[in-house]
Amino acid sequence: MKELFECLACDKKFPVDVFNTFCPDCKEPLLYHYPEKKRTIHKDQTHAFEVFLDFLPFEEIDHSLLLGEGNSPLVKLKRISKGCHVPFMYVKDESSNPTGSFKDRGTAVAIQKVISLKIDKIGTVSTGNMATSTAAYGAKANRRTFVLIKEDISTEKLLSCGVYGPVMIKVAGDYGELTYKSFDLGRKHGICFMNAVDPFRIEGYKVIGLEIFLQLGKQPPDYIFAPVSSGGHLIGLVRAYLELKQQGLIERLPIFIGVQAEGCSPIARAFRTGESRVERITKANTVAQAITNPDPPGGNMILNMIRQNNGRILAVSDADILAAQKMLAEKEGIFCLPASATILAGFFQMAKTDIFKATDKVVLVVTGTGMKNMKVLNPSQMSFFHSSLSNLEDTLLSTIDLLRMSVD
Amino acid sequence: MKELFECLACDKKFPVDVFNTFCPDCKEPLLYHYPEKKRTIHKDQTHAFEVFLDFLPFEEIDHSLLLGEGNSPLVKLKRISKGCHVPFMYVKDESSNPTGSFKDRGTAVAIQKVISLKIDKIGTVSTGNMATSTAAYGAKANRRTFVLIKEDISTEKLLSCGVYGPVMIKVAGDYGELTYKSFDLGRKHGICFMNAVDPFRIEGYKVIGLEIFLQLGKQPPDYIFAPVSSGGHLIGLVRAYLELKQQGLIERLPIFIGVQAEGCSPIARAFRTGESRVERITKANTVAQAITNPDPPGGNMILNMIRQNNGRILAVSDADILAAQKMLAEKEGIFCLPASATILAGFFQMAKTDIFKATDKVVLVVTGTGMKNMKVLNPSQMSFFHSSLSNLEDTLLSTIDLLRMSVD
Repeated sequence: MKELFECLACDKKFPVDVFNTFCPDCKEPLLYHYPEKKRTIHKDQTHAFEVFLDFLPFEEIDHSLLLGEGNSPLVKLKRISKGCHVPFMYVKDESSNPTGSFKDRGTAVAIQKVISLKIDKIGTVSTGNMATSTAAYGAKANRRTFVLIKEDISTEKLLSCGVYGPVMIKVAGDYGELTYKSFDLGRKHGICFMNAVDPFRIEGYKVIGLEIFLQLGKQPPDYIFAPVSSGGHLIGLVRAYLELKQQGLIERLPIFIGVQAEGCSPIARAFRTGESRVERITKANTVAQAITNPDPPGGNMILNMIRQNNGRILAVSDADILAAQKMLAEKEGIFCLPASATILAGFFQMAKTDIFKATDKVVLVVTGTGMKNMKVLNPSQMSFFHSSLSNLEDTLLSTIDLLRMSVD
Repeated sequence: MKELFECLACDKKFPVDVFNTFCPDCKEPLLYHYPEKKRTIHKDQTHAFEVFLDFLPFEEIDHSLLLGEGNSPLVKLKRISKGCHVPFMYVKDESSNPTGSFKDRGTAVAIQKVISLKIDKIGTVSTGNMATSTAAYGAKANRRTFVLIKEDISTEKLLSCGVYGPVMIKVAGDYGELTYKSFDLGRKHGICFMNAVDPFRIEGYKVIGLEIFLQLGKQPPDYIFAPVSSGGHLIGLVRAYLELKQQGLIERLPIFIGVQAEGCSPIARAFRTGESRVERITKANTVAQAITNPDPPGGNMILNMIRQNNGRILAVSDADILAAQKMLAEKEGIFCLPASATILAGFFQMAKTDIFKATDKVVLVVTGTGMKNMKVLNPSQMSFFHSSLSNLEDTLLSTIDLLRMSVD
């Protein structure tokens, strides 16, 4: 049976071609097309791919390519939710994945597909987390891995990707153009470039949404908040619930709220102004580095999906992002990337207009661990003291007194 | 019913006292004492605490204190095992825990106990991962958290702990003395110090061993390798299998191999020279910072347990540690702390004498993510290239040629 990609914008289908994942006609991202069939959730299985095998683009799992991705925890935000009268607030914490971000979800699916097609070289165009994830899975799969990165990448990111031993090429020039060129070169030289909004990556992100459904006792949440950059992650989450509805497993969709950083918010802008297409912006500038795609390839699709399903795309300021990051760590013990903290900032922005009910189940998808970007932390904002061993008791008592004076 | 601690060395029992976890008579660490009872594994449950509730020191779980710890993956090392003819080699990857290390296993259990005892202040004496873990759980539990750290702590570690908002006190003076003093001050001022080899922490580490048993299809592995610093982690792993045997669930114990870094290997030295007690060393010096306790409080207990059960304590060099770290990343896509890489180095050291059989199941417990210590990575050892967009094809081809010349 021939496998197909589909273009939602043109309503056309094409044979699967891993060397080009955009519609030849309209350049929108292609999605994997499933033939109609009854799908079952195999709840007794262990790995997320086994549990949701009927929802994935393969029929067999090559276990030798897995790194322990998925099954991420759904953690209730008891302290934060108390403050805002939404008792059922949760974080879906994707930082538990092997390289510390949700990107592993996508890479894990894409690599299954690539290996089954006997392709022996893989690659990605990325500025950070996706590069690291692709390098890790490429190492595990024993495949040559080519990572094309922007010239101004930080040493920190370079190291966290380079440790897996990929070929890293810093490329000077336009990042959007680089993505398109990567497909051409990939086809010519047999390198499968798994870039942002890759159809197989999107199927991996879908599993995050499916897990949330299971973790809430086979109920959809009322709201799902997710950071948005290229768009693939949110597209995957929406697809999860569209497919659950199609299977008759749920009656209603969650309301999806995509959140961008103000300093790079082309999709939020188009949403706000009512445009049907996203215009690229010239310069991204935000602390939320992991979501700084100025020309998001999934932007138009996101706009459509969100509007059709009553959702929103918000933009939040850097100050609010950093305050939300701090709050998640200090109140809930969750240290996430600034990019992930956008969603809590977005939640508070929405909560100002009081639309949440006390029965609402609100899920925030934390996409990556804060350990990936320590530079945003400011030591001067942390409380530390010096003491000798002999005057430790006095020091301890003075800090307790200080704490008594502070308000929780 | 009164809960009890026990001292294995004196064969005495004492009432549980969270403000002192060492034997009043011989100063050895105390362990939690379970009354004899039939224990069941509740395999249908989700959280590790629910699955192994009969093996834990509480009867109810306060879910509001959980951060999504446990259920860490057991990943087969296909490429490395091929090279050394031990086909069933696995990594138990504890870096998937909320703060990226196995310490969360211990903190999660200890905090359940502390909160149930209505203690409102917690603390720890730590140089790194345990501080971070305790601060995170303290934040989640809304408890004042006091972290006593060495003066020379790196900014990186300070930040990763400080982000959760604990009171951090840098203390000048002897680290061993600080641990004992922390208990005195804790009792006086109502702060529960959960230090290394805390009996409740050890119960948390036990769960790692229990999970391995389940993940291998209710079989014990033949070998378990674990890094050793203070000793609590390995004590927990041994306890897991002692209790499984006591329950008749297994017939034989795994062989436990503890691994230290040569630059701080007091337990390995005592093991090698046949001493019954561990002598503190004066100066620790190794890249494996996370396992540098020069005066391990669990040292004597480890020596005993390991000798009774046919295990070994090895020491490995920094060069071998860094080579093993690189190999795990480049061959298996697992980027771990140098402290965790000791165990692969230890495996290779043992493999030289050819004692492993092709049917042996060997489990390496990776204790923490490499993201916690990026400084050990050397950018000059990574292969990266520069290119413009226009000559990207040439650059790509030249790297492919280079790779053809290199040997896998």
